[in-house]
Amino acid sequence: MIYLDNAATTMKKPDCVVEAVARALTTMGNASRGAHSGSLAASRVDLACRQKAARLFGCWRPDHVCFASNSTEALNIALMGILNEGDHAISTDLEHNSVLRPLYRLQAERGLQVDFVPADRLGMIDYDDFERLIKPNTRLIVANHASNVTGNLVDVARIGKIAHEHDLIFVVDASQTAGCVPIDMQAMGIDVLCFTGHKGLYGPQGTGGLCVGKGVEIRPWKVGGTGVQSYSKAQPADYPTRLEAGTLNSHGLAGLSAAFDFVEDIGVTAISHHERILMQRFYEGVHNVDGVKVYGDITLEDGRERTAIVSINIRDYDSGAVSDALAEGYGIATRPGAHCAPRMHQALGTVDQGVVRFSFSYFNTAAEVDAAIAAVREIAG
Amino acid sequence: MIYLDNAATTMKKPDCVVEAVARALTTMGNASRGAHSGSLAASRVDLACRQKAARLFGCWRPDHVCFASNSTEALNIALMGILNEGDHAISTDLEHNSVLRPLYRLQAERGLQVDFVPADRLGMIDYDDFERLIKPNTRLIVANHASNVTGNLVDVARIGKIAHEHDLIFVVDASQTAGCVPIDMQAMGIDVLCFTGHKGLYGPQGTGGLCVGKGVEIRPWKVGGTGVQSYSKAQPADYPTRLEAGTLNSHGLAGLSAAFDFVEDIGVTAISHHERILMQRFYEGVHNVDGVKVYGDITLEDGRERTAIVSINIRDYDSGAVSDALAEGYGIATRPGAHCAPRMHQALGTVDQGVVRFSFSYFNTAAEVDAAIAAVREIAG
Repeated sequence: MIYLDNAATTMKKPDCVVEAVARALTTMGNASRGAHSGSLAASRVDLACRQKAARLFGCWRPDHVCFASNSTEALNIALMGILNEGDHAISTDLEHNSVLRPLYRLQAERGLQVDFVPADRLGMIDYDDFERLIKPNTRLIVANHASNVTGNLVDVARIGKIAHEHDLIFVVDASQTAGCVPIDMQAMGIDVLCFTGHKGLYGPQGTGGLCVGKGVEIRPWKVGGTGVQSYSKAQPADYPTRLEAGTLNSHGLAGLSAAFDFVEDIGVTAISHHERILMQRFYEGVHNVDGVKVYGDITLEDGRERTAIVSINIRDYDSGAVSDALAEGYGIATRPGAHCAPRMHQALGTVDQGVVRFSFSYFNTAAEVDAAIAAVREIAG
Repeated sequence: MIYLDNAATTMKKPDCVVEAVARALTTMGNASRGAHSGSLAASRVDLACRQKAARLFGCWRPDHVCFASNSTEALNIALMGILNEGDHAISTDLEHNSVLRPLYRLQAERGLQVDFVPADRLGMIDYDDFERLIKPNTRLIVANHASNVTGNLVDVARIGKIAHEHDLIFVVDASQTAGCVPIDMQAMGIDVLCFTGHKGLYGPQGTGGLCVGKGVEIRPWKVGGTGVQSYSKAQPADYPTRLEAGTLNSHGLAGLSAAFDFVEDIGVTAISHHERILMQRFYEGVHNVDGVKVYGDITLEDGRERTAIVSINIRDYDSGAVSDALAEGYGIATRPGAHCAPRMHQALGTVDQGVVRFSFSYFNTAAEVDAAIAAVREIAG
């Protein structure tokens, strides 16, 4: 199989990740639950993983890296744990349901007011809209760092500046960028960074978390055993325990920790460069093919950063049918449909057709890209 | 290391579990996110895992097995998703903070009324107390299947009968019993069974879930991407999607699925029998040692089921100091302190001292038990 669905999950993981998880499964106790070597081994892995995440993302303290099972959980924790009755929040049309559904839920259950910065037909936003939408009760801005449909980046540093000029909390969904786009929470003015381990970081599924900036108060999400302060009726107040309960996925975190090493060793910029070359090769091979339409703003000449996604349609063919043809006829894995991003498809005008998303990883090759180009040409021909 | 902290997490996992996770890390896409072979491989593993869980626990439908990252999350989902303003719930002094803290939180935030069936100095409860505590607004009983401090089982079938006579929802915390004590939700009258993968099931950390009985309505917990019904503003209503959002931990679930095979192949009864022999050997080796006090009701003669836990103290020594001495002087891993079960320690009278918990797994040996006995005798001597 030629796997080009890396924006859903990177299927090929570095050997060091597989080895770390396998080793953890035979040597690890329960983190923070005792002081014997098995428990300490798990605690040390978790701590190292927090340190690496803090370093990669520019989080001010490793103990403010709180683990969650995926970025969806991290975003639920952040949004449900910050927003109150009567608050107003600003988001964008680029968001994934992992942001939209918590916001809609808060609208229904806590009377949250929400406005969305609209995306144009290319899926791009106008940054002045943030200023325009701010109200006296605006408390938070939540935005995607990159669209999972088009791969276009959002200038989070620019939004961070606006947010802080107005004393707003700025939450970023880095699901598509962690590991393959440089992130610096402090330089970019990000208050809460939500990330997943199994995409651009090349770690296991079931890992991810949120990095909490200085002074950001988030109410506990799940509550329960913490291994500390067991006689307190409430979840402990200190991060990361405040947002973690029950046994951590330390087996997965051992893999994520190795994945951070992998990313750090190669370098985010080098990973991004490799992926971009593949993305660009694919784009150049398909965008002039008769019947092929490419979505989003693919301006490559000015060196503008984007993630390694090219989403297309072929004529008026249903995206699911094209994706199936690619899988069955050519052994090429892509992702059709709505990609859990309904507002973005409304903006792109692709609600009915969906789009066929090709997304590239560090482990893909030029030969795989060429096979995908040939397949697209054949289906379009 | 002689690892006798299996009630916290089983450190030694079957080879098939390690192999399944390692294989998944190189072959799996994102479950329910596309129709290519990588995604389907993950979906199939998840489905097989639901089927095996349903079979082992007597859940009426595999699609009512909803995955969570641990039993703490499963219990939060069940309790927060069922109980409403003004409800009354009944629980017991045997509970772990994974039950207690959600209940205390509901007391504070939703005005939940809670009563606890008291435990006596042996950590045992009187089942008539459940009937006595039922009020007109009682909606739910939540009880541990086995104490994580003493290993004593709770007769959940008996509580299930009481619950159903009064139209109450019965939630069971099977953290200590899933995999090593027979469970049949339907025969035992259990409405929601919360389990973890990394203890008696010998699966990876980061896995577990809740099995939802017929007609039980649980509100969504985290909401977000589901890969289906992407244009719906609300989380889909059907189980298991209702209670799952974002990418599942399919790498971990591949391990859990293999773990279910392991448990099914050997058999819960055979696993329990092996563990019981070790537990009994340890008990017989230490309970008459001068200065050793054993906690809980260890009645072994009548064949009564219990889990493979023996909790002790030595003289008035701090349990943490004894556990450290065992770890450092003898390479024996145990768990001291409060075990996240504050009400149980209040009942046992061990709030200050804690207890030293020895817990045995299928992979422990008689020789390891004998080494632990010798160590206890030496420390007590």
